[in-house]
Amino acid sequence: MTFAATVLTLYPEMFPGALGMSLAGRALEAGTWSLQTVQIRDFAIDKHRSVDDTPAGGGAGMVMRADVMARAIDAAAPADDPRPRLLMSPRGKPLNQARVRELAAGPGVVIVCGRFEGVDQRVIDARQLEEVSIGDYILSGGEPAAHIVLDAIVRLLPGVMGNEASGDEESHESGMLEHPHYTRPQVFEDMPIPEVLTSGNHARIAAWRREQALKLTRERRPDLLADKDIK
Amino acid sequence: MTFAATVLTLYPEMFPGALGMSLAGRALEAGTWSLQTVQIRDFAIDKHRSVDDTPAGGGAGMVMRADVMARAIDAAAPADDPRPRLLMSPRGKPLNQARVRELAAGPGVVIVCGRFEGVDQRVIDARQLEEVSIGDYILSGGEPAAHIVLDAIVRLLPGVMGNEASGDEESHESGMLEHPHYTRPQVFEDMPIPEVLTSGNHARIAAWRREQALKLTRERRPDLLADKDIK
Repeated sequence: MTFAATVLTLYPEMFPGALGMSLAGRALEAGTWSLQTVQIRDFAIDKHRSVDDTPAGGGAGMVMRADVMARAIDAAAPADDPRPRLLMSPRGKPLNQARVRELAAGPGVVIVCGRFEGVDQRVIDARQLEEVSIGDYILSGGEPAAHIVLDAIVRLLPGVMGNEASGDEESHESGMLEHPHYTRPQVFEDMPIPEVLTSGNHARIAAWRREQALKLTRERRPDLLADKDIK
Repeated sequence: MTFAATVLTLYPEMFPGALGMSLAGRALEAGTWSLQTVQIRDFAIDKHRSVDDTPAGGGAGMVMRADVMARAIDAAAPADDPRPRLLMSPRGKPLNQARVRELAAGPGVVIVCGRFEGVDQRVIDARQLEEVSIGDYILSGGEPAAHIVLDAIVRLLPGVMGNEASGDEESHESGMLEHPHYTRPQVFEDMPIPEVLTSGNHARIAAWRREQALKLTRERRPDLLADKDIK
């Protein structure tokens, strides 16, 4: 079944962008997923085709209008559309790999890209938009964040990754950061590959990797270990 | 002065992508920033132009070779290049707005995009790459993450945002999530704009917004408040 992505944006020309290349691009061509863009401006009501207005209560910037957004959302995803509706927003719940897995297992996703100061709260409430943040920084708009969500989802769709096994040991799949990697040449600028990795002793290798992963996670991301029994 | 970005990648065709449009695209055209891509494969050593090899110690996937990466990095950013060298990696330090501000205030950035399982640890050490993660999820490669870093930086460069003031009140600038926004129409689907915002009382409006921001942050991101005195 095709995973159906619909992106509501003022910049449909930003899609598919890099999602039309490499891994995601081949999957798009193969029909593993589909990508539809909706130009929010097409749902403007006035003759100036305005999509935003000044914030109630004053302040800098502009706010995207609830009525225009609602019309665009209703056209792209009627009430009985089973797909989750995401609003990319720095106020949202932080995206993590568990949520990416859930989304990838579903029928698709509707992604609303905000611009300017944000979106009128009433349409977020009335259309039950799930606010999702990809990280604690500010972007020019929701579009780059939508790319991230789709890239993360698409690589999990059936048949997309050549080597399925490769997914499970990665950082944030195991709940720990991944151990360091090495490959040929055997010696690089006087640094050899750690001896254990060329020992051929699979049990020692597995133990070393786990120890390294744990050490790295403790040093860099103790928060990931906080509610686990691996300490 | 032009902010100089150099991206090392196996997919130079992914750039500038959306960074060539809208806000970032206009700034690129105006010379506020520059973007150079370096094809890592051009620095391969063997006749097959290989950039990766199997992981030492076994396991799934492929690892990017230290020697090839080092040649590419040395060509793009000699030892005396003052720009920070980032390696986009889910094992990295989480990107936040403070780090984005630091990067935007500097001369530029060199971004290395990994693919496959990762990059040989020895080149990360030898070339002092700063591992940076944009969030706790897995992407197809470093390229989408590089887009995010550059988008976040470019909007902070002098003259890029029309309304400079608009930056300061946003989520992750104040240390809190942003208050909800409203704009016209006055009533949307029977929901009026909250009365306080149309009261004209600026002190009440400011107090309401702060209270809403605090409430939202407590509900969604208590971690942001954990080491602050605003509780």
